[in-house]
Amino acid sequence: MQICVIPGDGIGPEVMAVATAALRALAPDLTLTEAEAGWGVFQRTGVALPAETLAAAREATAILFGAVASPSHPVPGYRSPIVELRRTLDLYANIRPTIGPGVDLVVVRENTEDLYSGRERLEDDGNTAIAERVITRTASARIVRAACELARTRQAAGHPGKVTIVHKANVLRVSDGLFRTVALEVAADFPELTFEERLVDVAAMQLAAQPQRFDVIVTTNLFGDILSDIACIHGGGLGVAASSNLGHGRALFEPVHGAAPDIAGRGIANPTAALNCVVMLLEWIGRPHAAERLRRAMDAVAAAGIRTPDAGGDATTREVADAILEQLTTH
Amino acid sequence: MQICVIPGDGIGPEVMAVATAALRALAPDLTLTEAEAGWGVFQRTGVALPAETLAAAREATAILFGAVASPSHPVPGYRSPIVELRRTLDLYANIRPTIGPGVDLVVVRENTEDLYSGRERLEDDGNTAIAERVITRTASARIVRAACELARTRQAAGHPGKVTIVHKANVLRVSDGLFRTVALEVAADFPELTFEERLVDVAAMQLAAQPQRFDVIVTTNLFGDILSDIACIHGGGLGVAASSNLGHGRALFEPVHGAAPDIAGRGIANPTAALNCVVMLLEWIGRPHAAERLRRAMDAVAAAGIRTPDAGGDATTREVADAILEQLTTH
Ligand SMILES: CC(C)[C@H](C(=O)O)[C@@H](O)C(=O)O
Ligand SMILES: CC(C)[C@H](C(=O)O)[C@@H](O)C(=O)O
Repeated sequence: MQICVIPGDGIGPEVMAVATAALRALAPDLTLTEAEAGWGVFQRTGVALPAETLAAAREATAILFGAVASPSHPVPGYRSPIVELRRTLDLYANIRPTIGPGVDLVVVRENTEDLYSGRERLEDDGNTAIAERVITRTASARIVRAACELARTRQAAGHPGKVTIVHKANVLRVSDGLFRTVALEVAADFPELTFEERLVDVAAMQLAAQPQRFDVIVTTNLFGDILSDIACIHGGGLGVAASSNLGHGRALFEPVHGAAPDIAGRGIANPTAALNCVVMLLEWIGRPHAAERLRRAMDAVAAAGIRTPDAGGDATTREVADAILEQLTTH
Repeated sequence: MQICVIPGDGIGPEVMAVATAALRALAPDLTLTEAEAGWGVFQRTGVALPAETLAAAREATAILFGAVASPSHPVPGYRSPIVELRRTLDLYANIRPTIGPGVDLVVVRENTEDLYSGRERLEDDGNTAIAERVITRTASARIVRAACELARTRQAAGHPGKVTIVHKANVLRVSDGLFRTVALEVAADFPELTFEERLVDVAAMQLAAQPQRFDVIVTTNLFGDILSDIACIHGGGLGVAASSNLGHGRALFEPVHGAAPDIAGRGIANPTAALNCVVMLLEWIGRPHAAERLRRAMDAVAAAGIRTPDAGGDATTREVADAILEQLTTH
């Protein structure tokens, strides 16, 4: 089975080195290939997502994606490689779980349309910009179905089986009206679940203040981007949050954090989010035992106080990595 | 001077009754007119914002707006009266302050365009919906200027003089690219202030977890809607948050909370947000002394434990109101 690793920019390569070392230790039979993407390769070649990278990603069953730096201002020709990968490979379901004290929720984010459509134009001599927010019946139905199936699986494991549909249909009456209508249609196929609706502003507030209210949240792309970052704060922050982007027989796993240029190159990046991506990947390819071994190793190392500065310790990325690999070989 | 009061639906009339009583006590010379808007009047007449209401609002110097219920699903012909009022009266700056322990920040939200433009359409036999996100140079410039002026005024009172520009220009390269470019142009006119940029997802997370980082936040309409609800949690919640919608020589003041159908009619709605609207209104019409009297009366009543259930007490709306009016007559 082929796994494509795309380290990217900033701390991406630093944390992906740890992730691939762990993956090699846990599943030596996998074939790992590495490919380039991001701001660095764009500056060298003028392309942020080279054709070879896209080809390698297409050939792989699963992709491990580190992080890419965004230019601080819009640069002609630069398009975010992660947005491109999600759309081109039709990785339509972005699954972002958060586990923390009293909190166990998942944000299920539509990953292919909405304001990420790339349909923008200038009018009126450049004084007016229009971005098209695209919402389709097909994409709405499949993301809500994915959320419902996840809620059902979680329900079997003791979770409440509740799906919160988040939209802004009081203002976006047509586009979120469509999302909402389709969501309620799909909901009718899952009588064992309970459903509630929240307007996105209220959902954001409640997710910040009362995260224990939520089980599975399903929403459109940009709202999901915002809500999943808020959810992070209840689960140990950006240093640990991982996400999966699921398509048809293919998946991409990435930390929720970015390239963190402020700490890149200093050897102190927290590899936990990247390692959580490996846990997700192992589970997704059907190796729960290996996933569990990695989870235990990470817990043991964290419990021993071997943590990076952002997690309250003084260890380097390498020290954390070595301790985890040591756990993996001895346990 | 004429003040137009629009109680609206749900708890709107309950809290507006308290607000108008306080306003009458503090500024008996003002002429108060009352006008209808919302779901109730829509159900009776088919119009959510009657022409007479719009006319009364136009004639007034300031408007006190309660809350309107949204139908739970898109209803043909129904448009949110508050969105209509903001756009029709060109109340372009939505100012939402939050004060709480260690927190003193203001969200300055563009109020006339973005995804609130009402430009939506169906394509492809109703299977695709498109909403147009409209960002103009003019609206961007004036909202950022309003934020900078506010930051400067606050700086004179000891605040850091920092403006955080929130956008998603890494994805909305054209539309938020325009907003960002214009914002940085305007920023150049305020050398005494410091500026920073945040992507909306990161801003939402930081506003939830580290609100003390912020002074003045300026952003587009829908992002401001979401961020100001998040900010609320640091300032006593939706029961107290008030906002002003400022235009050219005209202003509308409204609680951030909605019509709260779950508690409407039970006499327990918290009138604090509505009273904070009166404070803002009095300040805006140049009566800081009256504003201060109301603030003191509210503080005294809250300190005496006379609070509605959402604020941890067991008083009714009327008991809180009576106690505050009593304070106003005796102090
Ligand atoms: C980097 C950016 C394009 C991306 C997004 O907006 O989806 C990121 O914020 C995320 O959440 O994965
Ligand atoms: C009621 C709704 C249209 C409104 C908005 O989205 O602006 C509300 O959420 C607000 O923040 O004032």
